[in-house]
Amino acid sequence: MTALDFVGPHEILSRLPHASSLRVAVEAGCILTDSGLVLDADLSLSDVSEADILVIPGAGNATSLKTHPNILAWVRQIHQTTTWTTSVCTGSLILGAAGILNGIKATTHWAAFERLNSYGVKPTHARVVEDGKIMTAAGVSAGIDMALVLASKVVGPEFAQTIQLGLEYDPNPPFDIGSPDKVPKEMKDKLKARMVSFFEEESSGHT
Amino acid sequence: MTALDFVGPHEILSRLPHASSLRVAVEAGCILTDSGLVLDADLSLSDVSEADILVIPGAGNATSLKTHPNILAWVRQIHQTTTWTTSVCTGSLILGAAGILNGIKATTHWAAFERLNSYGVKPTHARVVEDGKIMTAAGVSAGIDMALVLASKVVGPEFAQTIQLGLEYDPNPPFDIGSPDKVPKEMKDKLKARMVSFFEEESSGHT
Repeated sequence: MTALDFVGPHEILSRLPHASSLRVAVEAGCILTDSGLVLDADLSLSDVSEADILVIPGAGNATSLKTHPNILAWVRQIHQTTTWTTSVCTGSLILGAAGILNGIKATTHWAAFERLNSYGVKPTHARVVEDGKIMTAAGVSAGIDMALVLASKVVGPEFAQTIQLGLEYDPNPPFDIGSPDKVPKEMKDKLKARMVSFFEEESSGHT
Repeated sequence: MTALDFVGPHEILSRLPHASSLRVAVEAGCILTDSGLVLDADLSLSDVSEADILVIPGAGNATSLKTHPNILAWVRQIHQTTTWTTSVCTGSLILGAAGILNGIKATTHWAAFERLNSYGVKPTHARVVEDGKIMTAAGVSAGIDMALVLASKVVGPEFAQTIQLGLEYDPNPPFDIGSPDKVPKEMKDKLKARMVSFFEEESSGHT
């Protein structure tokens, strides 16, 4: 898992009134993220059978689907119970592999964008994409924007604005280069080549 | 600790070439953050005596300084060894309490801004403030912008841009309301009143 995929939305959604935030993994316990940071999952898949909001973060070196195919059955089960089913970054590939995105507009990390096609998705270029009760975010940091949009829908814009102000989320990146349409082709291709290897690896696990 | 204060910069700085990222707490082990998320610290203060870059995240309910005054001595010690000493959000109050910000331009979370005065700081309104080898970021999410600025200085703009593209950091918040100068006074005052209580509590611990 990529830590920021998860921590961005968690910082926002855990602040919703009466929210009870459950952090679920195949098995409860320590989760090593792809930056080396260790996060703690409170609960195992088998402990949780329903959720109002499901957030599936992405991964930089996804092996979980290969080793744990029961994730997909769990995702399908929880999706039946949700008000919102959401993903960040390559998390949408997990929703796709679970069969949830068939015919649905969705997005993912820009370098994995073509991978959405294999799940019958309508790949949609936007930072946050909503289709029915499914909301997907683009790469990593887009989860922050998605969670604010979601917070606004769930508890209203004023509360969401207060959260945004509390997090002082008035972004000012040093470069205007965070999206693939803004960068030189060479930089994009070079980074994509590095990233695609793990997407392919993930792909071979669930097709 | 506020998880996003730390995870934003970590996601960026851990990607620097040859970076070895050490996550240090008073005692190694589980750290409960103010959103309920548990992170793991690899090392205790006594395990670490130097660092190239020191990042001090902030907290929503800072009690660490009251219970562990040796943090301040450790921060002073590490600061002697750094190329960059940095903070996110109310982390700058820890740098201030350690005596490092005397006469220095710095920032913090907007709701804690006046608190900087008590440490002889030159409070400076900007998302990222640099003064000598000290770099401080405004509230929570500003740590992402700061870490990209820092990455650019440490390894050059092209590498920093590649990291930014990898994280697809092309922010598009749903509201233009992430800074206190952009919001209605009532919303700002209400949120500040809620937040100030823990700043005061923190203050009483190290004055």
